[in-house]
Amino acid sequence: MTKPIGGAGLRGQSAGETALCTVGKSGTGLTYRGYDIAELADKVSFEEVAYLLLKGELPNAEQLQAYRTKLKSLRGLPQALKTVLEQIPADAHPMDVMRTGCSMLGNLETEADFSEQGDRTDRLLAAFPSIICYWYRYSHDGVRIHTETDDEQIGAHFLHLLHGKAPSELHAKVMDVSLILYAEHEFNASTFTARVCASTLSDLHSCVTGAIGSLRGPLHGGANEAAMELIQDMKDEQHAVAVLKQKLANKEKIMGFGHAIYRESDPRNAIIKGWSQKLAEEFGDDRLYKVSVACESLMWEEKKLFCNADFFHASAYHYMGIPTKLFTPIFVCSRLTGWAAHVFEQRANNRIIRPSADYTGPEARPVPALGER
Amino acid sequence: MTKPIGGAGLRGQSAGETALCTVGKSGTGLTYRGYDIAELADKVSFEEVAYLLLKGELPNAEQLQAYRTKLKSLRGLPQALKTVLEQIPADAHPMDVMRTGCSMLGNLETEADFSEQGDRTDRLLAAFPSIICYWYRYSHDGVRIHTETDDEQIGAHFLHLLHGKAPSELHAKVMDVSLILYAEHEFNASTFTARVCASTLSDLHSCVTGAIGSLRGPLHGGANEAAMELIQDMKDEQHAVAVLKQKLANKEKIMGFGHAIYRESDPRNAIIKGWSQKLAEEFGDDRLYKVSVACESLMWEEKKLFCNADFFHASAYHYMGIPTKLFTPIFVCSRLTGWAAHVFEQRANNRIIRPSADYTGPEARPVPALGER
Repeated sequence: MTKPIGGAGLRGQSAGETALCTVGKSGTGLTYRGYDIAELADKVSFEEVAYLLLKGELPNAEQLQAYRTKLKSLRGLPQALKTVLEQIPADAHPMDVMRTGCSMLGNLETEADFSEQGDRTDRLLAAFPSIICYWYRYSHDGVRIHTETDDEQIGAHFLHLLHGKAPSELHAKVMDVSLILYAEHEFNASTFTARVCASTLSDLHSCVTGAIGSLRGPLHGGANEAAMELIQDMKDEQHAVAVLKQKLANKEKIMGFGHAIYRESDPRNAIIKGWSQKLAEEFGDDRLYKVSVACESLMWEEKKLFCNADFFHASAYHYMGIPTKLFTPIFVCSRLTGWAAHVFEQRANNRIIRPSADYTGPEARPVPALGER
Repeated sequence: MTKPIGGAGLRGQSAGETALCTVGKSGTGLTYRGYDIAELADKVSFEEVAYLLLKGELPNAEQLQAYRTKLKSLRGLPQALKTVLEQIPADAHPMDVMRTGCSMLGNLETEADFSEQGDRTDRLLAAFPSIICYWYRYSHDGVRIHTETDDEQIGAHFLHLLHGKAPSELHAKVMDVSLILYAEHEFNASTFTARVCASTLSDLHSCVTGAIGSLRGPLHGGANEAAMELIQDMKDEQHAVAVLKQKLANKEKIMGFGHAIYRESDPRNAIIKGWSQKLAEEFGDDRLYKVSVACESLMWEEKKLFCNADFFHASAYHYMGIPTKLFTPIFVCSRLTGWAAHVFEQRANNRIIRPSADYTGPEARPVPALGER
């Protein structure tokens, strides 16, 4: 009954249709609903991208203002959720916190009907920065923060909650661009998790909770954290080259380079690299940026591997004072838009995703009595 | 790059290998590691099945005793988890409670390394009945129950926590058989969710949390709850026939019949049907059993549809005093064994599960200025 397929992991196999995204097909290689990622990152804000993915088209000025106002109104957390977050220790994995926060909110604000999917998604979009920052500040600093700020944009709101003050214009801009770059990427493993869950007609919180769990895996999210660990102790360009050459000689995997689908470059890299350079100039210490550039050159020369979206995110986030362990939760705050848009698509044209398997186990055999084992 | 496939939902496509289970291939149609489901349900206990799935072979007497002793020792819940469960209202969806409880435990007892996968699974296996019953009794009865009982078996332990007293021998036996029947079923949607998550090398709690979210969907788990809603108001066989004929005339979907893979019968049905009859005799009111039999006959006569595993579970669970809303959480307590065994398999021979998609969206287009939308 099962047909053999070429590669493991369903590589190159179509598992459905999407109108959301192309990866490696046209323009610079990544489009959201037909718009090139470079043009989006240059011309629009993350809230416009969220609107585009979730509602189908870019908003006009009035729609955008209404959408931002709505999202601003949804940043508060219910007391029961705060109590839950306060039970999670400081040494927990921040992705476990996101997963639990999303799941808990599903108990308090359950999606009763698919007609609510848009509102529930907007709520998660507004609440995710509050969830991670509330837990982080409480568990690390003992502070119960107020999660409702006046920031117009989600990126600025996140930095505001994290640092307890409104961010500079440059930091707000870079966070906004970063959220755009991470918003959507076709049938990656976390998005596919969300679609498999959606295909059982489960609720939105289940789909997103499952996706967070998959993004947690080191083969998926977390490459920007690994990149930070790689570069943080590099003293200068020469040292960077020496460290990398040693790792290559040891055949260690270097995170932040290459991609499962892109073959020559990741279109998101040049964008975040440019912003990392600006942050370095503002910060007044360009060590991390320079060692990153040295890594990029060496990896291309030695292995013909290019930086993916994650590599220069490490230095950029670090320049904005973001703790390394919160890098992947930021990814969640952004990718939620893609996950939810895929859930909507799956629901609109659904068949339960239930593949088959090739059996490799024992032949049929009788059950031995307990005394005969 | 993508190859077209025959059916949506990856139907009939192999998405990997498994040594755990065959569905519709040999014996009565369902085997766990080569053992026929009917023989397992007749001769062994659920803890033996869990051991078989998780560790590869049936335990001998000594191993079984040690395993039961270990599971018994792991039934207590940490205070932080109890506090979380107490924040969840009585009208929450019990599957959201299971999802949140599993996720929260992942914060408190994180799987730091895959070498811990066996122990973490045993802990979840022991703790899941405690989680659902603690929440249920607290939210519905205002009681903080002690979750550590002396029952040798998981099924009896569950009934003990739910009812506040040790179950009869018959009830303990039926729960045990039920847990065996639901333990494993190849690449169903929730198991596939767990494998996709595992393929990113994420942790066990993420995989299981995601699987719970998928099982929550009405196309997957929950058919036994729907069957209960169908039969609960049927007065007698004649009434059952009239209700069903009306539903068929209205082209309503009847839950608990037919199967995505089995074509002629579900091997689990005869087993649970037999136990439901025994429960009806003990209970002294066989109305639910008799209307269920009438439904089974009519659906076969009219539609050539057979009862699947879920249909007679409805009456069986009801006879044991289990609230309908807890039917699917019991499924979780059982299927955890299959999910975890699949996670172990995926980890042992992994490639990230990342399919492709057919793009159906807009052609490449320029981003219009905000004033021009």
